Amino acid sequence: MLGIDDERFIRGKIPMTKREIRILTLVNAQIGVNDIVIDIGAGTGSISIEAAKIATNGHVFAVERKLEGVKLIEKNAEKFSVKNLTIINAEAPDGLSKIPKIDVAIIGGSGGFLNEILATVDKKIDKGGRIVLNCITIQNLSTALGWFKCRKEYKYDAVQVQINRLKNLGFYDMAEALNPVYIVTAFKINKIKAPNILIFQ
Amino acid sequence: MLGIDDERFIRGKIPMTKREIRILTLVNAQIGVNDIVIDIGAGTGSISIEAAKIATNGHVFAVERKLEGVKLIEKNAEKFSVKNLTIINAEAPDGLSKIPKIDVAIIGGSGGFLNEILATVDKKIDKGGRIVLNCITIQNLSTALGWFKCRKEYKYDAVQVQINRLKNLGFYDMAEALNPVYIVTAFKINKIKAPNILIFQ
Amino acid sequence: MLGIDDERFIRGKIPMTKREIRILTLVNAQIGVNDIVIDIGAGTGSISIEAAKIATNGHVFAVERKLEGVKLIEKNAEKFSVKNLTIINAEAPDGLSKIPKIDVAIIGGSGGFLNEILATVDKKIDKGGRIVLNCITIQNLSTALGWFKCRKEYKYDAVQVQINRLKNLGFYDMAEALNPVYIVTAFKINKIKAPNILIFQ
Amino acid sequence: MLGIDDERFIRGKIPMTKREIRILTLVNAQIGVNDIVIDIGAGTGSISIEAAKIATNGHVFAVERKLEGVKLIEKNAEKFSVKNLTIINAEAPDGLSKIPKIDVAIIGGSGGFLNEILATVDKKIDKGGRIVLNCITIQNLSTALGWFKCRKEYKYDAVQVQINRLKNLGFYDMAEALNPVYIVTAFKINKIKAPNILIFQ
Repeated sequence: MLGIDDERFIRGKIPMTKREIRILTLVNAQIGVNDIVIDIGAGTGSISIEAAKIATNGHVFAVERKLEGVKLIEKNAEKFSVKNLTIINAEAPDGLSKIPKIDVAIIGGSGGFLNEILATVDKKIDKGGRIVLNCITIQNLSTALGWFKCRKEYKYDAVQVQINRLKNLGFYDMAEALNPVYIVTAFKINKIKAPNILIFQ
Repeated sequence: MLGIDDERFIRGKIPMTKREIRILTLVNAQIGVNDIVIDIGAGTGSISIEAAKIATNGHVFAVERKLEGVKLIEKNAEKFSVKNLTIINAEAPDGLSKIPKIDVAIIGGSGGFLNEILATVDKKIDKGGRIVLNCITIQNLSTALGWFKCRKEYKYDAVQVQINRLKNLGFYDMAEALNPVYIVTAFKINKIKAPNILIFQ
Repeated sequence: MLGIDDERFIRGKIPMTKREIRILTLVNAQIGVNDIVIDIGAGTGSISIEAAKIATNGHVFAVERKLEGVKLIEKNAEKFSVKNLTIINAEAPDGLSKIPKIDVAIIGGSGGFLNEILATVDKKIDKGGRIVLNCITIQNLSTALGWFKCRKEYKYDAVQVQINRLKNLGFYDMAEALNPVYIVTAFKINKIKAPNILIFQ
Repeated sequence: MLGIDDERFIRGKIPMTKREIRILTLVNAQIGVNDIVIDIGAGTGSISIEAAKIATNGHVFAVERKLEGVKLIEKNAEKFSVKNLTIINAEAPDGLSKIPKIDVAIIGGSGGFLNEILATVDKKIDKGGRIVLNCITIQNLSTALGWFKCRKEYKYDAVQVQINRLKNLGFYDMAEALNPVYIVTAFKINKIKAPNILIFQ
């Protein structure tokens, strides 16, 4: 069932995609039962694990550069009895070459290589595929918007999601803000290439 | 598939629960395949229809007081080929007496009768059931929080969700705010009654 | 000059009203040069000190129950060379009896006595006076709205303010959320008393 | 007095900077009594007029490309008895050459020429001057952040401000969202030029 509570995941010092962002990201990714999913910057694996529970006949590749993250993903996969998950300990786009054609790419972290990651992911996605990004910096958001804007084979939309949790303090309920996240969702609608842009110097 | 785009619903002048709020509301409701769901203040029926598509072996009762809403729900049910949906044209809690035991109550509109609606819904929900409210006024939010706070048989949490959609304007993407919504989610955990509170005067 | 940076105040463990909320609160309070201002739940004194710098020929009374807060207010008053400020170490509405007629009341903390504080403050404010509240809980917001709603001698409005600060991380700017605050601003427009409400039992 | 209510301004179809954003923008600009201020993309003139009321011995230049805007600024200047205001009907950076050295530049609209506007404004601002931008698109925000990031003679910060106004509906108060705005504030701290960046091709 989609929407595992944050505190149920085994967590370290690595930031984790919060439940509401995770739900909207996964719904936007429209993962099917047989889908092949790649989760780049998988962190604690919360998105990978929920994705794997949807794609029960498919497979999820979790790419994470930090060893601490890899161990957390392993532990969480075990805790939630997820088998259809392969962890790739590499810094994307490195490590992506091993992965076959995919239906869905979820990009939660890009380590400064967002353009390279998008270019690599694009080659592995056919018409009907989806790319969903969680952006917490203006620069990555701007890069992602620009990337899809000039590629006519993608249709994208983007929303900013701000969640305030009401913390129960006896009689009172006090708002506590989570950091806002931009979710960029792109669908590959056909194979028409964007026109080449020539820059004369 | 959860998360139908807003523009796909046939809409009138009645306000509609926006996609992101709808998704989080439905996920919080943890609707199962066999569940009986009641959607109070169903409006255009967007939540009812998505709920009915999850509870494929269950049933959804959409309660709506306005005739315009009833007609929109009918049209949308037809458009999305939903059969397991019964529309009740009444002002809640009126009209709820006809409904059997339920697993989930989603309250999107309460027309000034939130306390009465909660009391009526409570009688129809057993341990394990869920009540999810969408509150757009401080007063209904406050009433809902207070109602669950003093009933130990419920465990609740609440979040405020604020969505800004980035509107694509050629080169630019401009943020457009949707009105924020508080989602209150309550689980009935057991049948222990809250202690009577005596007020001496 | 209005809008002192948060980090310039000497701070302890007591929560401080953040700069943007402080600015909007002080502007809404429309403090004049000769005004008498009371700051209830003064905390570190950030609002009191900025108020005192506006009401240069007036006076500010900072009411704070915690000794830690009192000491911080003293230190900050010294740091910012504020003389027209009196600290009252009491739990409001206690301690307010010593204070004369006031032009502006700013209520940042109420320690569970919001109704009593509003009733006491009301007696000290004449036509033209202003009450500005910062609410971080739904219950205090709801109480404040209800209090002004049924008193025709006040005109009120309320806004929720959510600030995300972009943290500079080299090439990147990452959004960090501050907790949202509701600012309720009420003007005493005349001395017409609200009709008595009789409750028959 | 800072913080004129939105409805007091004479408005047309041109978007107006809302009160809370206007207040924070003007406070961040730290306008002094003798300051020369330029307001680029002045729209209805709400910022220009409030700036002129602060810089009573200074002057405000309101740059607006649309004739409708120019007329609104004229009307509002008359309504609020503002004399120290000159309207320049031009598309920035055109029209800026007529303006002398300035202390403050407020950029509310840039019509696609943000880089050019920043370059022109930069030449007119000495050490101690301030540039404050209101960005409603991710692209202008990104451009502004990048511009200041690589110029060591500026110190900048940025916040996103999201305001929800509680609309009074009798017993109820309902949240209505205003579109969020990013406020970027930059101080010119000294005249050290950023190192030249050489791009080898």
